Amino acid sequence: MTSRPICVLGLGLIGGSLARAAVAAGRTVWAATASESTAAAARADGYDVAPSTDEALVRAQDADALVILGMPLPAVPGVLRRVHAVAPRCRLTDVVSVKVAMRDAVEKYAPTARYVGGHPMAGTAESGWAAGSTTLFGGANWVVAADDGTDAEVWADVAELAWDCGARVVPAAAEEHDAAVARISHLPHLLAAVLAAVAAGDERGGEPGAGALAMLLAAGSFADGTRVADTRPELVLAMCEGNRPALLTAVDDALGRLGAARGSLASTGGLAATVNAGHRGRQQWRTARSAPELKVARDTDMAGLRELGRHGQVLVGWE
Amino acid sequence: MTSRPICVLGLGLIGGSLARAAVAAGRTVWAATASESTAAAARADGYDVAPSTDEALVRAQDADALVILGMPLPAVPGVLRRVHAVAPRCRLTDVVSVKVAMRDAVEKYAPTARYVGGHPMAGTAESGWAAGSTTLFGGANWVVAADDGTDAEVWADVAELAWDCGARVVPAAAEEHDAAVARISHLPHLLAAVLAAVAAGDERGGEPGAGALAMLLAAGSFADGTRVADTRPELVLAMCEGNRPALLTAVDDALGRLGAARGSLASTGGLAATVNAGHRGRQQWRTARSAPELKVARDTDMAGLRELGRHGQVLVGWE
Repeated sequence: MTSRPICVLGLGLIGGSLARAAVAAGRTVWAATASESTAAAARADGYDVAPSTDEALVRAQDADALVILGMPLPAVPGVLRRVHAVAPRCRLTDVVSVKVAMRDAVEKYAPTARYVGGHPMAGTAESGWAAGSTTLFGGANWVVAADDGTDAEVWADVAELAWDCGARVVPAAAEEHDAAVARISHLPHLLAAVLAAVAAGDERGGEPGAGALAMLLAAGSFADGTRVADTRPELVLAMCEGNRPALLTAVDDALGRLGAARGSLASTGGLAATVNAGHRGRQQWRTARSAPELKVARDTDMAGLRELGRHGQVLVGWE
Repeated sequence: MTSRPICVLGLGLIGGSLARAAVAAGRTVWAATASESTAAAARADGYDVAPSTDEALVRAQDADALVILGMPLPAVPGVLRRVHAVAPRCRLTDVVSVKVAMRDAVEKYAPTARYVGGHPMAGTAESGWAAGSTTLFGGANWVVAADDGTDAEVWADVAELAWDCGARVVPAAAEEHDAAVARISHLPHLLAAVLAAVAAGDERGGEPGAGALAMLLAAGSFADGTRVADTRPELVLAMCEGNRPALLTAVDDALGRLGAARGSLASTGGLAATVNAGHRGRQQWRTARSAPELKVARDTDMAGLRELGRHGQVLVGWE
């Protein structure tokens, strides 16, 4: 294990939890944030917050630190411009939930940075510094992008940070990651929004009070199926709109299956194919949750790493 | 309040909980069940289980009891035939989640019964006698059908049973109930099934292991959005297929909204309309949960009762 210093840019739920977890793991950590009030809160909690992003990046350049982009995708280009200006060859990763668009942004705005994409899959309904915790990543899966040509040294830096934070590492190609999260995270957000709007009769007018009766009766299945529609819309939009090609494929799959269910209900009245496929999907998920935890040889190449993630295996350290 | 005796036919989660709650409220309660093992378990717990449905119905006829149909829709016609043969003019209600198909079945198989539809909106992921409890209906909404021509005396019987079980009464026309539950219960089950199948890559083949990576990464939003896909498929099918016309309308609404989201994502890349409508729907639901609880005059007619439910109001007793 190295004890490479960590420079966290952005102190929201994820960046803030990462700073806490890295400090708890004994790393040297400093941060920067665009929010004065967040900076004050983090300093009051004893964290080292630089006066500006540029000053944090100068320190990263000097210390050969791993820089973490801890902001939503729309804020990334502005920060990457500062990375390119101040620390153009720094070790760089991120916590954004889309990996192809991130890779494209780095190629465009900070092309010489030693970038390896990351996505710690943890969160709560809350956001902001105050919602963070040292243990947010405990047992979570942390995807580390393993495309061909990836800088193996920085890949190891990111994996070791994930392990230090208590997470398990899942190697995946950027495209495979995006296709997977489109189906298990972004599509659920869209379907939750559609369901909540249908149930509430949003923008439909219709019978007086028709939505009021439905809302009064809504409970278990509605409550669970729409829970993520409570998420702040701007966060959902940043995730979903940033993963457009993969999300389109997932939406088309959902439209096809829902259309088939509609056709079957209208013609024979039967929904068994749809309902049984869903039941099987849940069973597959429960099986997948008991994925084998592996230690991996340090010199495994990117193709070998990707293959492990593709088969649902998770890494917990070096062999 | 009357202390009208209660005859429960079927001792699954709902019927079994109803028998327990009615006994706890001081009612005289007897039951019948098609399952020998359930009958044995209920008797062992101290409940009065008749040797057969016919014998339970003879007692109901003699005591002018309120008979409750506590089985899923597909099992209803067979029991209604016994009602018509043994206790043709009995006071009759049910706990089935669709009200138009139930009304049609009663008109067909037990046309002289004094039937008033009911739907206690409570449940757990479990099923069967052992999963039941005295408190299952505490604070739950119990829809009591208030169509024109409804027998007011039996309507009061059902409302009083609901109140005795700790529930709140929501009066609604059968059609309005079915339209509402299609949107807040049956559509959520269909969307959960579609989501689980898309995420698992069910019946698609595709890339080797593509589903395995997605299943490994699936967590919060997938878990919540698909939770009800764990329900036993035959129960989901009984609910959804029994509410075909209303469910078709709800599915078409969902297809229209999801298709519009798809079009917008493909053209401008924007999902704000979809995501914001979903966020508003959740807010409307939270507001509706604090519905005013009313006491109602005993002589309120069916149109007046329906109007209360249509405006999201719940009844907790007589004025």
